[in-house]
Amino acid sequence: VGTLDVASQLASFRQTIDNIDAALVYILAERFRCTNEIGLLKAEHDLPPADKSRQDRQLARLRDLAENARLEPEFVDKLMHLIFSEVVRQHEQTAAMRQARQPVTK
Amino acid sequence: VGTLDVASQLASFRQTIDNIDAALVYILAERFRCTNEIGLLKAEHDLPPADKSRQDRQLARLRDLAENARLEPEFVDKLMHLIFSEVVRQHEQTAAMRQARQPVTK
Repeated sequence: VGTLDVASQLASFRQTIDNIDAALVYILAERFRCTNEIGLLKAEHDLPPADKSRQDRQLARLRDLAENARLEPEFVDKLMHLIFSEVVRQHEQTAAMRQARQPVTK
Repeated sequence: VGTLDVASQLASFRQTIDNIDAALVYILAERFRCTNEIGLLKAEHDLPPADKSRQDRQLARLRDLAENARLEPEFVDKLMHLIFSEVVRQHEQTAAMRQARQPVTK
């Protein structure tokens, strides 16, 4: 196998990676659109931004799926913690913005 | 809007999140299958596991896509650094396993 073959093999793999990454960005954008809706709903009804038992169920389910897909469960844990903390940050922001808009009525 | 409505709205959003997360797990599994192939190719040809200029180009492109999708660019940075470090860890593992299998010939 010559150097050119290696370069073109590498370029082909990288095209796949670039396509997958674009899909990841768009699917994650949709996920945050959905959690923003949840954030609004929670803020409207004074529900807490984070729900630990829901997160535990999500993690357990995704670890099972990861095993099935042969993805490292530790990686899934790290990914979900990154996503969860971003969601909570956004929920807190939503709640703070609502509070700033509304005069205290009590 | 009653409590039941809120609960069923929340349940519906959560179903979307669960579907998206399953898609994320499977798409990420495929991404690591692809980077594993790259790792093997690099190890075979003694290429370094990480390529900083390639990573910089990936990040710049994904920040643009994120803006288009209305996803926080800072979140994309964090996500890609998590993915990059996992890939480099796996590439180093691949290189070490190859070295352990082959007797030194020099």
